[in-house]
Amino acid sequence: MYNEALNEDKTHEYYMEIALEEAKKAFLLDEVPIGAVIVRNGEIIAKTHNTRNTDKNTLSHAEIKAIDIASKITGDWRLEDCIMYVTIEPCPMCAGAIVQARIPKVYFGARNKKAGCAGSVLNILNEPNFNHQVEVTEGILSDKCSEIMSEFFKNFRKNKTSEN
Amino acid sequence: MYNEALNEDKTHEYYMEIALEEAKKAFLLDEVPIGAVIVRNGEIIAKTHNTRNTDKNTLSHAEIKAIDIASKITGDWRLEDCIMYVTIEPCPMCAGAIVQARIPKVYFGARNKKAGCAGSVLNILNEPNFNHQVEVTEGILSDKCSEIMSEFFKNFRKNKTSEN
Repeated sequence: MYNEALNEDKTHEYYMEIALEEAKKAFLLDEVPIGAVIVRNGEIIAKTHNTRNTDKNTLSHAEIKAIDIASKITGDWRLEDCIMYVTIEPCPMCAGAIVQARIPKVYFGARNKKAGCAGSVLNILNEPNFNHQVEVTEGILSDKCSEIMSEFFKNFRKNKTSEN
Repeated sequence: MYNEALNEDKTHEYYMEIALEEAKKAFLLDEVPIGAVIVRNGEIIAKTHNTRNTDKNTLSHAEIKAIDIASKITGDWRLEDCIMYVTIEPCPMCAGAIVQARIPKVYFGARNKKAGCAGSVLNILNEPNFNHQVEVTEGILSDKCSEIMSEFFKNFRKNKTSEN
């Protein structure tokens, strides 16, 4: 698929694969395997992954860390020319941060039925009463994005059981 | 008012006054004047204010900075024994972060009709489908908390007009 938004001959799958590589790094750290990438004019300016347990900080979700990196690189809290790729539908905190940062487009892989805020539980990314709405496309490499999550939680439950 | 939650003879107004002092620091920096305080066992472990423009980072809202400080002090992403005082109803990002950090109680001053997520636009702090709900009390020093906001936006509009 040609990505008209990025002025380059790269596909959404190309960027999502990089977000997935980040998710794999989280997996290897025993962290919930979610990765995020921020792209500006076809260039990746931030790629990172969830490290909440490692950092002992709830702000270390992949999307928040990516927004932090992108703000430092662009020198602006408004990321109006940035696109985010994230493997899993954003939680309320991350969806709120995406709205606050004025990111215009988000591509995500798989849904998060329990906490997703691009429509699953709430739709923060498209709340008409906020001063910014995000164009959202879901389903980019969704099988791979959800498989790594399933594998993580299967191992998590197994380890929990063997500890008891 | 005796504050039964804090094991000390300090009132909610006492802690909110400190959050207001933080909001005043933001005001003097030409930042939207919002302050936040996190209290654990009656002790203030974080007090800070919005510095989004100064830091050029959307993550520099008062509540996010307070959660960051508190996580570093406690060494835990779960702030389950912490209470937050914030001068204005949290935005979606900050409300989401409060839920993610498992903060059990939030006291806020005045409502934010345009973006507040403790009931004004959405109710992220009390969404039954999330795995954490927050006990929220509003109206602590609400007049003072809203007055400093009104003054800020009055000046902001005046400066904007004189620039044209």
